[in-house]
Amino acid sequence: MTKFSLIENGSATSPTGFVAAAVATGMKADGALDVALLVSETDCTAAGVFTRNQVVAAPVIVDRETLKKNAKRIRAVVMNAKNANACTGTQGIDNTKVMQGLAAEKLGCEAGQVLVLSTGVIGQQLPMDKIAQGITLAADNLSAAHGAMAAQAFMTTDTVAKHIAVQVPLSAGVVTIGGQAKGSGMIHPDMATMLAVVTTDANISDNTMADFLDQVVERSFNRISVDGDTSTNDSVIFMANGTSGVEVGHTSEPIFGLRMTTYDEDTKLFLQALTYVCTELAKMIVRDGEGATKFVEIQVEGADDDGEAHQIANTIATSPLVKTAFAGGDANWGRILAAAGRAGVELDPDRLQLWFSAETHPPLQVLEQGAPTAYAETEASAIFAETDIVVRLSVGRGKGEAIVWTCDMTHDYIAINADYRT
Amino acid sequence: MTKFSLIENGSATSPTGFVAAAVATGMKADGALDVALLVSETDCTAAGVFTRNQVVAAPVIVDRETLKKNAKRIRAVVMNAKNANACTGTQGIDNTKVMQGLAAEKLGCEAGQVLVLSTGVIGQQLPMDKIAQGITLAADNLSAAHGAMAAQAFMTTDTVAKHIAVQVPLSAGVVTIGGQAKGSGMIHPDMATMLAVVTTDANISDNTMADFLDQVVERSFNRISVDGDTSTNDSVIFMANGTSGVEVGHTSEPIFGLRMTTYDEDTKLFLQALTYVCTELAKMIVRDGEGATKFVEIQVEGADDDGEAHQIANTIATSPLVKTAFAGGDANWGRILAAAGRAGVELDPDRLQLWFSAETHPPLQVLEQGAPTAYAETEASAIFAETDIVVRLSVGRGKGEAIVWTCDMTHDYIAINADYRT
Repeated sequence: MTKFSLIENGSATSPTGFVAAAVATGMKADGALDVALLVSETDCTAAGVFTRNQVVAAPVIVDRETLKKNAKRIRAVVMNAKNANACTGTQGIDNTKVMQGLAAEKLGCEAGQVLVLSTGVIGQQLPMDKIAQGITLAADNLSAAHGAMAAQAFMTTDTVAKHIAVQVPLSAGVVTIGGQAKGSGMIHPDMATMLAVVTTDANISDNTMADFLDQVVERSFNRISVDGDTSTNDSVIFMANGTSGVEVGHTSEPIFGLRMTTYDEDTKLFLQALTYVCTELAKMIVRDGEGATKFVEIQVEGADDDGEAHQIANTIATSPLVKTAFAGGDANWGRILAAAGRAGVELDPDRLQLWFSAETHPPLQVLEQGAPTAYAETEASAIFAETDIVVRLSVGRGKGEAIVWTCDMTHDYIAINADYRT
Repeated sequence: MTKFSLIENGSATSPTGFVAAAVATGMKADGALDVALLVSETDCTAAGVFTRNQVVAAPVIVDRETLKKNAKRIRAVVMNAKNANACTGTQGIDNTKVMQGLAAEKLGCEAGQVLVLSTGVIGQQLPMDKIAQGITLAADNLSAAHGAMAAQAFMTTDTVAKHIAVQVPLSAGVVTIGGQAKGSGMIHPDMATMLAVVTTDANISDNTMADFLDQVVERSFNRISVDGDTSTNDSVIFMANGTSGVEVGHTSEPIFGLRMTTYDEDTKLFLQALTYVCTELAKMIVRDGEGATKFVEIQVEGADDDGEAHQIANTIATSPLVKTAFAGGDANWGRILAAAGRAGVELDPDRLQLWFSAETHPPLQVLEQGAPTAYAETEASAIFAETDIVVRLSVGRGKGEAIVWTCDMTHDYIAINADYRT
């Protein structure tokens, strides 16, 4: 954070040229905001990363097509909560296209320049009268001051709106990166829909954006979700309208035809800032996990490679037995080891080392060479009484490492999910 | 069940020549039984299936060695609850061997003829004074009437003892198969330790037993646990003492050297009965799932092969979002589809069909060609109000099918697991 700065109450409309609006159409029982528009005043280059689930919601199908055709000229994202428009057949696709058309008509662009994000219940058709009314009202109310409201509108079981923005001083001028996200399901292992939109006023080519987004999502949103374990609607959209006039994404020429990308210093800093924005949004999702009372960072080191480290960290992070132990403030490292042991990667139990720590507690080694150390249970309990806990597992085989963020699993998780639909 | 018959209050000591004893050594806070012996009066052929976890408890390491050396002459199983003897280093191995030696001394056999099953907390050394006292007392109290007590003794968070036996009339005489099991963790996806011992007075070669056990575990205990997702201690032991004088396991000769096994009718019936015993024990574990209030059978058909069907069924069965919906009596088929979609196998969303049923409710089709039917939500809710629910998913690609049993995830699951160790 030394080289770029956080904007107070920043959001996806912090970058110049972006406006938003959110309205309440009555889909949410409490009358909260449920439809939103995020609009760039000029065409954007854009990229998207979508769910790897085989069952894909209509808006994801349509957005993929839209980005394939128009990644150089996206203008807007229309969003709704309460209904995911998933498992809704051809009518679902048609409804998504109607949403595009309605937004385009009001904004004076083409339907193919509009992306759609939906989240909520699966298997019910959208209430198109409310959606249409929402889009129309929102389009009349666009403002750069409404970014936080747009973040509110696509919340489902989220308890706080998640948005952020940073200013990045590059050599050719300052660019801004903003973003909003939603998602508060357990995230692991069946995340409730995770949606995010990241905006910037930098000027970036569509191919470079797709490359940036892949890299950054891997180090942020994918660190709170198991690879491949995604809902029907998960989407991360990245839009750049170039209104700052500052170009990023310069690379050195490929050497002897090798596919080696070397970014210039400005691009490296931009990528750092983009990673920060996405990582912070991802962590906000974990902190707002359904019923969560603890934020846990799982660090795995010494694996054969980074992929195996990630797999071990994910298996620990998604274990209900581990997550309930966190909820109970129980430093039950046996469950952590048992989870690591079933991660599907080879381990040498005799080389395992494990530490627990928290901000005010230095690392406490509880396991050395696969057997418990003579640590005091009271010390471990003191760490587990904190709300932010770090678990570090060294597997002693190679240089692979990974970090994954997770939360505990509490009674409230059950309450929220047993009663969600009814 | 037409060809073999259930024995009332049957257990692992129902087959002739088996005796058991269980004692309370004070390891369980409520003074319940916590150490048991199951003994055959004569040598047994034996086989075992053990956890695939990379972190393996001392008794599993020792049992694997023991069976490798002495699969033709096993005499006894010594069991304890409250302590898994896992992640306990060389002292853990030594303690397991002390348990073998103590039992052998009292029973007049060799240490290498004794198997050990431990379950409970990970990472603490066994209280060997209590264990030793328990083994000694138990050995003095062996009786064929104590089978149910042995099943009680290895319970952890189980609320009921799980044991069963059947009589199987074969052409050469009647044989009996008995068994006991424990395990009531969520089973999926991190099963708390699952232990089972199956006994018979049939005469079977050790190689045939290993083959039988592999086949049967795949269709019973593995249907309540994700492949490879096992705890540090999971074990299924199968012992045959041959005292009935009836031999099973005859096969036809291999044809032209092909590795084709064709069992005779008696062997087929024996395998059916063995499968029944193991399946019933497995279902008892699910019904006693921690905090469980519902028993759910997940049927998947029309997959590319049985393995993919199993993978889909497992992913549904282990989804916390699906399991909490069951707890809430919510026929939330969207979560079922979302789970199927992330099972890691290819699906055609447009071909998916889904039915719900219960004993008193015929199948209600809620999904046809990937989109919801015009079913009445009240009908679905009536099914989900039952305690035994069947979910049938047809994926419309091939002939692969699988059945998996699971339970719901309730507040009590969290309560039991957040407070287990403390």
